[in-house]
Amino acid sequence: MEPLLDTPATRPDLYISVIGAGRCTAAQYALAEQVGRLVAGLGAVLVCGGLSGVMAAAARGAKEAGGRTLGILPGHDRSEANTYIDVVVTTGMGHARNLAVVSSGDAVIAVGGEYGTLSEIGLAAKIGRPLVLLDGWRLQRDAGTEGIWYADTAEEAVALARRALRLSGA
Amino acid sequence: MEPLLDTPATRPDLYISVIGAGRCTAAQYALAEQVGRLVAGLGAVLVCGGLSGVMAAAARGAKEAGGRTLGILPGHDRSEANTYIDVVVTTGMGHARNLAVVSSGDAVIAVGGEYGTLSEIGLAAKIGRPLVLLDGWRLQRDAGTEGIWYADTAEEAVALARRALRLSGA
Amino acid sequence: MEPLLDTPATRPDLYISVIGAGRCTAAQYALAEQVGRLVAGLGAVLVCGGLSGVMAAAARGAKEAGGRTLGILPGHDRSEANTYIDVVVTTGMGHARNLAVVSSGDAVIAVGGEYGTLSEIGLAAKIGRPLVLLDGWRLQRDAGTEGIWYADTAEEAVALARRALRLSGA
Amino acid sequence: MEPLLDTPATRPDLYISVIGAGRCTAAQYALAEQVGRLVAGLGAVLVCGGLSGVMAAAARGAKEAGGRTLGILPGHDRSEANTYIDVVVTTGMGHARNLAVVSSGDAVIAVGGEYGTLSEIGLAAKIGRPLVLLDGWRLQRDAGTEGIWYADTAEEAVALARRALRLSGA
Repeated sequence: MEPLLDTPATRPDLYISVIGAGRCTAAQYALAEQVGRLVAGLGAVLVCGGLSGVMAAAARGAKEAGGRTLGILPGHDRSEANTYIDVVVTTGMGHARNLAVVSSGDAVIAVGGEYGTLSEIGLAAKIGRPLVLLDGWRLQRDAGTEGIWYADTAEEAVALARRALRLSGA
Repeated sequence: MEPLLDTPATRPDLYISVIGAGRCTAAQYALAEQVGRLVAGLGAVLVCGGLSGVMAAAARGAKEAGGRTLGILPGHDRSEANTYIDVVVTTGMGHARNLAVVSSGDAVIAVGGEYGTLSEIGLAAKIGRPLVLLDGWRLQRDAGTEGIWYADTAEEAVALARRALRLSGA
Repeated sequence: MEPLLDTPATRPDLYISVIGAGRCTAAQYALAEQVGRLVAGLGAVLVCGGLSGVMAAAARGAKEAGGRTLGILPGHDRSEANTYIDVVVTTGMGHARNLAVVSSGDAVIAVGGEYGTLSEIGLAAKIGRPLVLLDGWRLQRDAGTEGIWYADTAEEAVALARRALRLSGA
Repeated sequence: MEPLLDTPATRPDLYISVIGAGRCTAAQYALAEQVGRLVAGLGAVLVCGGLSGVMAAAARGAKEAGGRTLGILPGHDRSEANTYIDVVVTTGMGHARNLAVVSSGDAVIAVGGEYGTLSEIGLAAKIGRPLVLLDGWRLQRDAGTEGIWYADTAEEAVALARRALRLSGA
């Protein structure tokens, strides 16, 4: 695909954050990898927390599809990023970095997830990022309420994100 | 130049943060632009706070030289980034984002600067990032003390950063 | 009650964070006020986000019971704190301050709550603070799992927090 | 002295942050202790980073004078606070907590200091907190410029802070 950073012309105008736990099931890994491939297919930058599990799977999928990845780490050490991250940000702020992970995406897709992911779901909804939940947390809210949707497949998750962002072709 | 984000093979292994004020003199703008060109010449990702003044000048210089830029913003709105930023991170943490700006660089070069820059200088030194000060703040420390150097030109600043990082050819 | 801050002898050894939305129902306000009274009855410092709604109700209840309150604000302006806050911290970090709100409590009690509260629930569980959910979010986890309990009354919520902290008499 | 937290009537309306390094000379320790005593004498809450060195000395001085102290820690563990801190906030944000330390004071007094202190000086000036520098960093600015003053004694430092805040009797 076209290089991201050679000229301002290639400046990306779409970022999608994929959030999930550093440890996940094989099924969640496969799901996150597929989400990553589809996000790359949109030409979006895949944003994640940069570590293992769902974060690595989504970034791996994006790279497999020729996509671009951005990882935002809790610590100061870039080497903690998984090998599928192109651009690494180290924050040194611990879990406070979760706010930057969701803020940097135009939409957020959660795959499975534990409590760190739950905090990111809350922050994403609080700051008004469209949010799709896949195979994990379900809130006591109807689908679509306050910009939160539920998906059963990676394809549905990315389609819902596209629609929420009113992307052409969505 | 080689695209940054097409394949893991192009993952950058060098980041240099350039810090400075959102408002600066024409001389500082020219200086920061030259620093940006030279940083790009090293093949490094230029990291900055993503806003105007020195941040825009350094990013502009890096793009003129075919380089790659990363901007880390204080707010939640990506559109606040200057037009020379390739990859934008929004943190929503206000000035607390200064820690991520300096942490994300292997070395830090300050051009001029006001108080936000001074806070970044302190944070960079605190977390042990080699730091070069150019045309601005001078601390009551001898050059080289605790990894802080003073430069009079953009060329000298980047050369000092290269040497501090023990880059081949430096 | 004994003054908090006259001598090191009065240094509090128990803090409980009460989290909830800046806007709430009258029933939630009454519930949070009662939680605040009971937290004060334990001799604990009541920690909250310092703003209105549940945060003000809990602090008001604590003051009615002769308790002590600590408010941690998102902005830089102390005057944004509700009038029931004794000690005000301004962070200037926006929603990133949520981490400090839950970290500063030995246990966390959530009353009702919207998405900011959900982010605090996730962060509290992530860092291992015992967590009691009252009249609001219910997670897909059994009661007691990973230190999360559900309560139906203010009395039950505070009793569960006491037990989780193994306080004498609990 | 009057208890801080018994009733809203005792809500403090003056906070002064004292910043400095976790390791300091005996002379700086004595200076910070005297600053703490004088801050307590103003009826102000002494705010600091909660750790050792200058932070402990200032808090100790404030307690010796019957004052009140607030410590804002970088980690999640309250026990890291020095024994002179009355109210402890744990942030879990590492050096990003420096912003909350200076933001929470109406004025800021720096005693000696290393690079963490320099970052706090920059942040305090950036957000417009009156700032007095004592026995440490000196900036290339004239005294009084942008609300920054230099003092040679603890008495002068506190007097300058009082004047900057236009306190009665100052």
